[in-house]
Amino acid sequence: MPLIQIDLDRRLFEEKGQAISAAIHQAQVEMTDMNIPATDKFQVFRPHDAGELIADPAHGGVDRRDILVIQITAVHRFPVRTKQALFENIITQVSRLGIRSDDIFVTLIENGFEDWKPGIASAPTD
Amino acid sequence: MPLIQIDLDRRLFEEKGQAISAAIHQAQVEMTDMNIPATDKFQVFRPHDAGELIADPAHGGVDRRDILVIQITAVHRFPVRTKQALFENIITQVSRLGIRSDDIFVTLIENGFEDWKPGIASAPTD
Amino acid sequence: MPLIQIDLDRRLFEEKGQAISAAIHQAQVEMTDMNIPATDKFQVFRPHDAGELIADPAHGGVDRRDILVIQITAVHRFPVRTKQALFENIITQVSRLGIRSDDIFVTLIENGFEDWKPGIASAPTD
Repeated sequence: MPLIQIDLDRRLFEEKGQAISAAIHQAQVEMTDMNIPATDKFQVFRPHDAGELIADPAHGGVDRRDILVIQITAVHRFPVRTKQALFENIITQVSRLGIRSDDIFVTLIENGFEDWKPGIASAPTD
Repeated sequence: MPLIQIDLDRRLFEEKGQAISAAIHQAQVEMTDMNIPATDKFQVFRPHDAGELIADPAHGGVDRRDILVIQITAVHRFPVRTKQALFENIITQVSRLGIRSDDIFVTLIENGFEDWKPGIASAPTD
Repeated sequence: MPLIQIDLDRRLFEEKGQAISAAIHQAQVEMTDMNIPATDKFQVFRPHDAGELIADPAHGGVDRRDILVIQITAVHRFPVRTKQALFENIITQVSRLGIRSDDIFVTLIENGFEDWKPGIASAPTD
């Protein structure tokens, strides 16, 4: 159950929030070696007004203008190259929406299998 | 010093935010084997408008409709069963407010004792 | 690439957000043993309305009134005393803006070098 938190400009969210959501999810599902089910979709969008998102314009060797911050929380179980491939795929998919790849900042926090509880069924579900 | 971050629907926050805050805190304090003092209460509520909280309706075997995301940051020191019992108690307590237990998503990130600084006294406090 | 997330009162953000941003960044850069470049500046401010930030008034031995929560995500590579010195320097710098040091709550989450992707250059950058 990755949880994905996206902090972004409010106008960008209003124009393309649904498409960004779908692109991030598609990028995750496409990583077949991660074996994350297509139903495993949990995202929190936080639209921001001017001045709330602050980033250096060039750190990391990019030409950054309007940062979009994607924070992933996921279970610690993937090798480094898989994680980096996920980040790159997210940036690739989101940038197809007309968002500059320089502006898409991704970071990951890991926890354990036991650190999740995605609700409790209030009634029999089958 | 657990820090609890709650992302939820804005109307739900306006109607029941204080009760949700109290319920989460009560659930934490009731976990006597965690030995967290009743004064250890730090919560950040983030109300959301439509479209900002996105979740699969069924992943994890629940009937999810309007997700409420609870993220706990706490020191790594509790056994797995204690953590899971905390999550379940939070969901139980919050669901008593009329919020469906299926909708309450809990996750935990752990850090170390040294990773906290809850302010510095600006004047002698005794 | 530390990422710094700041949850604070909306009026405080409107009055002093830019100064708080600069103070936190100065505190980070001044920690010369951390060796973080001055260009490594990534901050997310989240202004809050009344009732959204909840904190015990005295836990931790301080006189807390209006909490400002600073969450740092950074690579796991600094010794404990360096991390604590960073927290104290942030509180010192921010409190020079007239914000009570009792109110400044700092916590840190650590991840790995491989858990970051700060954008992808969309064109040659030199």
